[in-house]
Formats: sequence, structure tokens, C-alpha cells
Amino acid sequence: MNSLAPIPSEQALVPFVSVAEMMAIIHRVGLETAFRELADRLEADFARWQIFDKTPRVASHSPIGVIELMPTSDGDRYAFKYVNGHPANTRAGLQTVTAFGVLAQVETGYPLLFAEMTLLTVLRTAASSAMVARHLAPKGARILALIGNGAQAEFQALAMKAVIGIDTVRLYDVDPAATAKCRDNLQGSGLTVIACTSAEAAIEGADIITTCTADKKNATVLHDNMIGAGVHINAIGGDCPGKTELASAILHRAEVFVEYEPQTRIEGEIQQVAPDFPVVEMWRVINGEVPGRRDAAQITLFDGVGFAIEDFTALNWLHSHAQSGGAMLDMIADPDDPRDLYGMLMRARG
Amino acid sequence: MNSLAPIPSEQALVPFVSVAEMMAIIHRVGLETAFRELADRLEADFARWQIFDKTPRVASHSPIGVIELMPTSDGDRYAFKYVNGHPANTRAGLQTVTAFGVLAQVETGYPLLFAEMTLLTVLRTAASSAMVARHLAPKGARILALIGNGAQAEFQALAMKAVIGIDTVRLYDVDPAATAKCRDNLQGSGLTVIACTSAEAAIEGADIITTCTADKKNATVLHDNMIGAGVHINAIGGDCPGKTELASAILHRAEVFVEYEPQTRIEGEIQQVAPDFPVVEMWRVINGEVPGRRDAAQITLFDGVGFAIEDFTALNWLHSHAQSGGAMLDMIADPDDPRDLYGMLMRARG
Repeated sequence: MNSLAPIPSEQALVPFVSVAEMMAIIHRVGLETAFRELADRLEADFARWQIFDKTPRVASHSPIGVIELMPTSDGDRYAFKYVNGHPANTRAGLQTVTAFGVLAQVETGYPLLFAEMTLLTVLRTAASSAMVARHLAPKGARILALIGNGAQAEFQALAMKAVIGIDTVRLYDVDPAATAKCRDNLQGSGLTVIACTSAEAAIEGADIITTCTADKKNATVLHDNMIGAGVHINAIGGDCPGKTELASAILHRAEVFVEYEPQTRIEGEIQQVAPDFPVVEMWRVINGEVPGRRDAAQITLFDGVGFAIEDFTALNWLHSHAQSGGAMLDMIADPDDPRDLYGMLMRARG
Repeated sequence: MNSLAPIPSEQALVPFVSVAEMMAIIHRVGLETAFRELADRLEADFARWQIFDKTPRVASHSPIGVIELMPTSDGDRYAFKYVNGHPANTRAGLQTVTAFGVLAQVETGYPLLFAEMTLLTVLRTAASSAMVARHLAPKGARILALIGNGAQAEFQALAMKAVIGIDTVRLYDVDPAATAKCRDNLQGSGLTVIACTSAEAAIEGADIITTCTADKKNATVLHDNMIGAGVHINAIGGDCPGKTELASAILHRAEVFVEYEPQTRIEGEIQQVAPDFPVVEMWRVINGEVPGRRDAAQITLFDGVGFAIEDFTALNWLHSHAQSGGAMLDMIADPDDPRDLYGMLMRARG
């Protein structure tokens, strides 16, 4: 795209995965295959957790939302994601959460890939939930309750089907239209879908309860008396300061698993409890240092807030599927002589 | 670009300023006009410094370089820049520093502009140097010494010409080829250009000395005995931990001005001195709280490392000049119903 550089470095043009291209890749790979591949890659990256640069996300809060940057690196590749969270956006016909990000080479700092990440984040969040459930859900789990039937719901259901084999999903949302949308979308998916009119009804018989509601406030989606022995709770909607979904009493009855403790203390369900409330980082379970589910009666709780390493995994997965011949962005200035930016600019005149 | 959304939100497609488009904008505006506009906008944003979100940049260091994210917000708009620094890149024909970034709306979190920022960073760095020199350089300054004649050099010279009216530039670089490149590029610019074979020769008679060398290490580009009374030093090459350009004795004879003290303590020339070494943040000078240059004999030193607010200013400047009809990126997923990402994905199948 820069006709002035006779021999442009191949790194000067950056592959771009647009929303349309992301959807094409998902369909080419197959959504359930994508979830299995992502779950396996997430497990592999959690297993080498300690080599990653880790920092709580860099958040810019405003009264109506948040914009965050989530960087990490394994020393070979670097990734960051830009993600916003604006619950009022849906009223204006906009997404609550949108995202994009970059995968780069640590050796040169040059980007390898620039990608939409609204869809990719939903995929990796669902795959992370399912990967964690592989370690924490009761053996033979078949029934998933989904509390909150918004943009993430179908993906959560299908990832649990693809990765751990659930066959039934019970839906509830405060907005019946959201439940109807989710039910209709899951027709033909191979899942038995049951729309419920209360959270209490939805969790009847559930082996796994996923909460993914969107309000930016402390809400109580699950009360203590709703949670029986042996269930796995996948709480992914409490993901920023001041936003939680569970009665705190549930935390005291459960064993709580997190991605990265310093971030989850700020953003997760465990905001509600003391700073020394015991939690287990999931990578220790995956490495075998700490048991996951110990017995059939235990209540396990994944307090998922989303961490940069999951986005790193997702971008690397995407890079492995992005085909040559796609869109390339002229986003890196590439003069013949790296010290001669000015000469490049002047030669572009006229 | 998403044909599946019958009425795409106008915010779903993000304007993209490529390297080629950036060069076209610079030529349309005129480089010296761009420097004057940027200097005025920088001054206006420094004047409202206290309303910005400020955080030291988020750096990921490796043995051979650094990748940084630099976010800020004024409550109305949010900006971040991705920038790398890899001195060994030039040996592979790559840029030492490349950058790109995004301007977004705080209200929705949606991007307003995605842009190359390698060129834009060079522009804003030169404009910042010149804006600061407007307050700190000796009255009637005419002669600029440029130590380090790499990618930034011509821009530094022309910004000082456009904003404060220097008419002569004296060049020195350890690599004579860099000096020759810079001299040749500045032919016809209206500046008298003098190539020198030592730093001592280059600074003879200079009113302003700009150091912009690239080594990632503590180097001594200027020794104490080289600096006479009344000069303004614009030290912009000491910009990461372990990288400085000046003999520390110079700092003790000068009044030192910085952008954002917490960041400059980590990255600037003042790495070399005690943590309580006195410095003045430039916004206080611009607001009239603290004098800039007090007399003709004073040595002033701008320890410039580059701060996120300068990039915010530059992206807003660029946004004001970006024309409709340019490239638009399909980077925000935009389903008709914001809660129906899955439906959007499924309708894209086949």
C-alpha cells in the first residue's frame, strides 16, 4: 500500500481480521471445534502461567462505563486488548462490550495481527468457562442453567456442550425477550432448551449454573438458599468494581477459583468478602498443584472476570487460522532507510 | 462492510488513517502549519493538564526492547497509543520506534479513529519540543544544535523553525551518514544547515541543543564542560529506564522541566539524580504558576520522555483533519439487536 518503498518489509503491512473475516473463520473452523481448540490452548497457556507478564488491566472509568487495556506477554509474543463496558449502550443500539486487539512479536515490537475482538472475546470467555468446568464441574454434568441470556449466552451453552458434553440448557433472564432470542437461536443446536420464568426454576436440577448478567451494579442473581450441594457455579458477569451477581453467603459455602487473584479481588464476586478470603488460582489446578473438584457434594465457584492471558491465547489461535490473502493494513511506516522517515514523507508529496 | 446489518450504526465502522493517508494529510495541511497547530493544541491541553487521567505508561520490557501502552482521557475522549522501542531493529531494516493508536468516545467506548502513529508521534514530539522551547528557550533563539540525526532530526529542526523561528541548524551524529541524510533532507527548507564532525563543534553558538540519540543505554552525549550559560537543552532521547544522554552535572546546573514527573523519574535524564531532585512540570509554566526562563544566563533543560496527553492531543488534531470518504474498518461487531451476537454470526453462515 506504500508504493514509495520499493522493497517493503513484509512486516510493514499488518493482517487485519475484520468482523466479517472473523465470522468467516469461525464458520470455516466450526464453532464447536473452535471451542475445543480454544479450551485446549487455554489449558496449555494456563499450564505455563508463571512465565507470562501479568498486570491487572489498565482501566479508565467514567460514570457510565469503562475502557480497559489488557496487555500480556510470554516473552515471545505480546498481546493486548482494548475493551469497553457500557451497559447503557444497548439503549442506543450499541454493544455493551466491544473489543479489538493486537498480537505482536516481542523481538521487534512489530504487530503480527490486528483483529476485531468483540466476537473473539465472547468465544474465549465461553471456552474459558468450559475449560474451567472440565476441572470443576461434577462428573457427567448434563444440565446447564444460564442466568442472563444476552450476547454471551448461546456461546456459553455451546462451549459447555462442545467441551464437557452438556445436553440440556435451562434459560432465565429478567427480560423474557432475551430468553426467547436465546431459545430460538439454540434450536437445532443439539441441545434441549428449556425457557424458564424465574432463576429458581432455571436452576432446578442443574449441574452447572452460569451467571452472565450485565448490570453495572451489585445485584443478587443467585441467593444462598438456591444453591444445593455438588453444583458448579460459573460466575462470569461480576467483572468490574461495584458489579457482582451472587449472595456473599454462597462464597462462604463454596471453594472459589479465580484466574489472577490481584485482578479478581478488584473486579470479581470476591469484592464482597475479606481481602484474605481464600481463593485458588486456576493454573494451580491445571498443573496438578491443587485439586479441582474433590467430591460430589462440594460447591465449586469459578469467579471469572477475564484475564489478558486468555486474550493472548485467543489471538494466537486466531493467528493460526488467519489465511494469507486477507486484508492488510498499511499501519507501520516503512522507509527504505529506517532513519529516513522525513525522506519517505517528502517523496510522498505530489 | 457488514452486509448483514441492514442499518449499521455509523459507529460500527471506524475511520482508519494509514501511513499513506497520514502523509497525504501532512502535505495537505503543510508540515510547518501542522507543527504550529499541534504546538497550539498541546499548549491548550497542557493548560488543562489536571483534568486528564494520568498514569505512567504500561511497559512490557524484554532484553532487546520495550512495548508500551500509553492511555489517557479528558472525560470526553479517550486515547491510547501502542509504541515499541527496539534499537536493534534498524539492523534488520525495521524502525526503532513504530506506533499506532486509537481515539475513542468516553460516553460509549466506541473508537472514533484508528491511526498509524509512527509519523504522528514524530510530529507531536517535535511540536512538543517546540512548544516547550517557546517558554524556555532564550529570547530570539536562532541557532539549533541537533545531536543525533536519525528519524526525528528533520522534524525537530522544522518544528523549531515553524514555532519559534530558528534559522540555523548545526548537525552531529556518531554516524556521518545520518548527518549527511539530514543535511540533504533539509536543503531547500529555508534553514541554514551546517554539518559538524563532533558534538563540541555542533553546539558552538547554539541557543538550543536538542539531543535525540537512540542507544538503549546510559550514554554521555553532552558533557558538563560543553554547556555554557543561557542555553536551552531539549533532551528527548533519554526516554526509557537505563537510557540517558547527559552528564549528570549538567542537571545540577540547570532548571529541569518535565512532562509528568512520576514517569520522567523512571525514564528521563533525572534517573541519574536523587528522587527528590527538584523538577517543574511544564503545565505549571504554561498556566503561569511557575516562571519558565527567568533570565538570559539560566540553563533550562526539558527532560522530555513523551507523555500520553501529547498523543491524545495529536490524535484529536488528526481527527480534525481526517476527511470523510477515507478508509473505514469493519472492527466493531454491530448486530441489529446488541444482545444477538450469535444471531449475527449464524446469519453470516453460507
